[in-house]
Amino acid sequence: MSDLNQMLLNEMLERRRPGHGLEAPFYLSDAIFRADMTHIFGKHWIFVAVEPQVAEAGDYITVEIGNDSILIVRDDDEQLQAYFNVCRHRGTRLCADKQGIVGNIVCPYHQWTYDLKGQLVHAKHMGEAFDVGQHQLKPVHVRSMNGLIFICLSREAPGDFDEVAARMAPYLAPHDLPNCKVALQTDLIEKSNWKLTMENNRECYHCVTNHPELTASIFEYGFGYQPDPTNRDSMDRYLATVAESCQRWEAMGLPSAEISLLDGRATGYRTQRLPLDGAGESQTLDTKVASRKLLAKLKEPALGGLSFWLQPNAWHHFMSDHIVTFSAIPISAQRTLVRTTWCVHKDAVEGVDYDVANLKAVWEATNEQDRRLVEEAQIGVASGAYEPGPYSPFTEELVEKFDNWYVERLRACSAA
Amino acid sequence: MSDLNQMLLNEMLERRRPGHGLEAPFYLSDAIFRADMTHIFGKHWIFVAVEPQVAEAGDYITVEIGNDSILIVRDDDEQLQAYFNVCRHRGTRLCADKQGIVGNIVCPYHQWTYDLKGQLVHAKHMGEAFDVGQHQLKPVHVRSMNGLIFICLSREAPGDFDEVAARMAPYLAPHDLPNCKVALQTDLIEKSNWKLTMENNRECYHCVTNHPELTASIFEYGFGYQPDPTNRDSMDRYLATVAESCQRWEAMGLPSAEISLLDGRATGYRTQRLPLDGAGESQTLDTKVASRKLLAKLKEPALGGLSFWLQPNAWHHFMSDHIVTFSAIPISAQRTLVRTTWCVHKDAVEGVDYDVANLKAVWEATNEQDRRLVEEAQIGVASGAYEPGPYSPFTEELVEKFDNWYVERLRACSAA
Amino acid sequence: MSDLNQMLLNEMLERRRPGHGLEAPFYLSDAIFRADMTHIFGKHWIFVAVEPQVAEAGDYITVEIGNDSILIVRDDDEQLQAYFNVCRHRGTRLCADKQGIVGNIVCPYHQWTYDLKGQLVHAKHMGEAFDVGQHQLKPVHVRSMNGLIFICLSREAPGDFDEVAARMAPYLAPHDLPNCKVALQTDLIEKSNWKLTMENNRECYHCVTNHPELTASIFEYGFGYQPDPTNRDSMDRYLATVAESCQRWEAMGLPSAEISLLDGRATGYRTQRLPLDGAGESQTLDTKVASRKLLAKLKEPALGGLSFWLQPNAWHHFMSDHIVTFSAIPISAQRTLVRTTWCVHKDAVEGVDYDVANLKAVWEATNEQDRRLVEEAQIGVASGAYEPGPYSPFTEELVEKFDNWYVERLRACSAA
Repeated sequence: MSDLNQMLLNEMLERRRPGHGLEAPFYLSDAIFRADMTHIFGKHWIFVAVEPQVAEAGDYITVEIGNDSILIVRDDDEQLQAYFNVCRHRGTRLCADKQGIVGNIVCPYHQWTYDLKGQLVHAKHMGEAFDVGQHQLKPVHVRSMNGLIFICLSREAPGDFDEVAARMAPYLAPHDLPNCKVALQTDLIEKSNWKLTMENNRECYHCVTNHPELTASIFEYGFGYQPDPTNRDSMDRYLATVAESCQRWEAMGLPSAEISLLDGRATGYRTQRLPLDGAGESQTLDTKVASRKLLAKLKEPALGGLSFWLQPNAWHHFMSDHIVTFSAIPISAQRTLVRTTWCVHKDAVEGVDYDVANLKAVWEATNEQDRRLVEEAQIGVASGAYEPGPYSPFTEELVEKFDNWYVERLRACSAA
Repeated sequence: MSDLNQMLLNEMLERRRPGHGLEAPFYLSDAIFRADMTHIFGKHWIFVAVEPQVAEAGDYITVEIGNDSILIVRDDDEQLQAYFNVCRHRGTRLCADKQGIVGNIVCPYHQWTYDLKGQLVHAKHMGEAFDVGQHQLKPVHVRSMNGLIFICLSREAPGDFDEVAARMAPYLAPHDLPNCKVALQTDLIEKSNWKLTMENNRECYHCVTNHPELTASIFEYGFGYQPDPTNRDSMDRYLATVAESCQRWEAMGLPSAEISLLDGRATGYRTQRLPLDGAGESQTLDTKVASRKLLAKLKEPALGGLSFWLQPNAWHHFMSDHIVTFSAIPISAQRTLVRTTWCVHKDAVEGVDYDVANLKAVWEATNEQDRRLVEEAQIGVASGAYEPGPYSPFTEELVEKFDNWYVERLRACSAA
Repeated sequence: MSDLNQMLLNEMLERRRPGHGLEAPFYLSDAIFRADMTHIFGKHWIFVAVEPQVAEAGDYITVEIGNDSILIVRDDDEQLQAYFNVCRHRGTRLCADKQGIVGNIVCPYHQWTYDLKGQLVHAKHMGEAFDVGQHQLKPVHVRSMNGLIFICLSREAPGDFDEVAARMAPYLAPHDLPNCKVALQTDLIEKSNWKLTMENNRECYHCVTNHPELTASIFEYGFGYQPDPTNRDSMDRYLATVAESCQRWEAMGLPSAEISLLDGRATGYRTQRLPLDGAGESQTLDTKVASRKLLAKLKEPALGGLSFWLQPNAWHHFMSDHIVTFSAIPISAQRTLVRTTWCVHKDAVEGVDYDVANLKAVWEATNEQDRRLVEEAQIGVASGAYEPGPYSPFTEELVEKFDNWYVERLRACSAA
């Protein structure tokens, strides 16, 4: 970004109006997109995958963040490793597939061969003077939080990961993601800036009209509501249900209380276990479990949904029978990939314990509905007539938190 | 546009060589395209639709000009209104469809609801302090000239519209466009800069070889010709026919004399009623009317063609039986939408009074031929070898007028 | 290119590290792509076609170099002429087809008519004062080197063409390309920068694993190899075979010795006749001739392959029975066209003397394999983690020569 653009960006960051959306260039500008990739996606912990995708030694996956392809592999010591997927010879992408199994990593161009620790172990024709030790793969920070895999592309990764992982472990551990399998993973490309995708995720103001499948299990009061004389009783009943459920789950060893630390820090996050409507078991069309084989050692199906939101790009729902994870990865200023992964117990049998069509029904429909909404938002904010409107103080607080986090992190990182 | 680019643009505008085409960047540059959108399409009256498209209260259409979607609606008082199609909340496009019927305008995202006068009448969850009166839709100037709908996106619209409308009314009124219906509307995307599309429209030098369908009814002498000994007699005969027809039509209450005010003003235009060849009735393959139900109260089919050209983007032909309107809307520096609308009497019955295949035959073929020509021009002017050539003083006068208007308006508006 | 970009480019050119690949912007940057088109493809001799494509008077072809379409035509005196394919009137592309036959060159728009010497001979409606002599087509330098057609787009073409042609004539003449016919021409679009395409062509380090079809006839020692105790004997045998074959072919009047002048000059090139494996006749799957009708007056099928590499964009293989030519033409910073042309004796009869499927089998497969490799390289060098790696001193010398030539020519031409 040129100095002039940086100055314009700083001005826009400084004049952000609290309680209102972002100015149009944040959703449109290629220069700001590059700043987002450098400072937000380049310097923070980014959720990209789940451990069941790389369950065994030699299993690898590749993920794309901007122009970088990252190779995540489980090495022979069962440790996760991540590397830039780039040969040290002529720069060729080493693994083109999304996933696979390897013994060594062999470049398809001239067969330079690296072991799973990233060391170059063989390169033909390079002569006696050539030092394989100077040509290891470039490493990428990689960490698992109870099976959720995060990477960080910068030399220094934010130091608060351990603290977040420690606080989240009691919430996540009972669902035992590492002992799940991936039942389905889908990629949806939204013609929208990634921040419109995230802002959409951070409120349910739009749910009641747009998400009939999701609101079968999600309570309308769960994500903020303006109290008024006509709904005071039902809101009170809902809050009592939350309190009662929470107490019961905590007694079962399932932490449920809200933690909300979405801004003012590098790794912003929020979690809460909330009751579900109907049978109260799962985010399904009939609100019952989609997999008869419950996760880990869980016996009780009606555990509501443990939600876990992370800045800048992820949200997850852990139920008694399955886990759904989401990651939003920017493709360009006006394109975003939303990757959704449904996990069930690794011993659950498709067609016996669960049916993929039923498992995916709610979120496949919801994703598609959200895609349409954020694409209409993208079209609208491109108009010269767009000006950031006010957020609802009742239903859009978490959108505001997302924008706060984004603005403060972009300001901090781009100044550094 | 940066100061440096503005300076380069000014230099190019200053050095324009009279009687010659424009320099290549006017057809290629993204920066000049943005200047065109800001100053030409953003500050002038732009023809976009016809009244029959929004005949009843609640009827709406949407049109795109650059990044702006515009909502044109007939309100409950039967008045035309136009708004930027952008919600005042999160910026979402309000109406995604090309046309429809609405009672109120409801945003699909969070159901903010506007009436047809643009007032916000309902927004949930916004709290007691929220003032709906501060969040009306942003208005766009909209005017009808005897059924031809024009919009202007800037705060101040050119003041000469009333004068043009007054002079054109006697020409247009006898064809009564508001009491027509749309028989067909087609969209053609030309891989060309909009100015190449317009320059193509402003001459018939290319017609004789390229437009066999059109020249069935259009006289070869009608749009300029170099006199020489071999054609003096036939040109004289043609001019006598024009004079005689004109006198006859004027006597019937149909103004026919040329008005040519294409440059030196904001709303440049030209009109003339010209005889047609053959049966002299309509721009059809057999030169006879395409619709047996003549427009308005017309009794005589052989009224030639009343042409009405407007800067920067429109041309229209009014015959006794149907009206064809055209608007060229830039999509990008090298893409232009040409929208063609065929209107017949609102009581004409398809299959009985007219046949769409016959109605569209001439202009569908002609548009396609012109698309090919302007795309070849677009390819050619991108070559480093292109330099603006001389215009014919006999057949390309109106092309020169178009370029004059463009250069003087861009100079005036970008200086302001 | 702005002054600032030119300065950054100069810095990158200055700091190029010998024996290593180019920095990433050379493969990615739009600004450097434009510099490449201006200085490399705009100011050097570019191989684009073969004479059999324009065998007779009136035959023409069009080729695209960047934004320029070039018309190459054989005039009525049997001379090759080349022009910018742009009308001097409104800039329209004159000939849209890839090839054809013309008497005069007539613009499709307004029928301005040029003869095959490029003179404007007819333009209607231009008035008495118009001077056709001032509106000839703009010429492009065109030369044939024993049937290989080169063009140069700049006003001054590099002066060393004659010298190269003189040295190459004895090598090329025995294969008599002008008396061939084109059996097949294919266009392959590679999603790679043209320099990755060329670097791939300049080494066979990648051949053994990637090109099973090609290595049926190409010896693994032919393009560089690291000597070591296990291969010393077989390398010695190979070198003896080369020496023996070379002597035999020279005695038959077929120059075979290597000329290697790839850098340090405007028209860099290299040639050598090398033995082929198996039957030693042709670059085919079975190593035998693909056409029973040998070229020119050749009697002996086992003449190996005469290779001819040219900077910046071509490589060719001349065998006893057929000739394969290649040209790489940049489309954008990350797209390159590879055009491959297979020529056989003009009297060879398809289905009798040769079979196209057999003729094309090796290079069609090889091109496709190379496309995949260079596309993986393109993806990799876009990563922030890419840094230019070391070239093999044994197998990548000619890649290094290509980079040297490129850097020295870009430096020389952009400074001028």
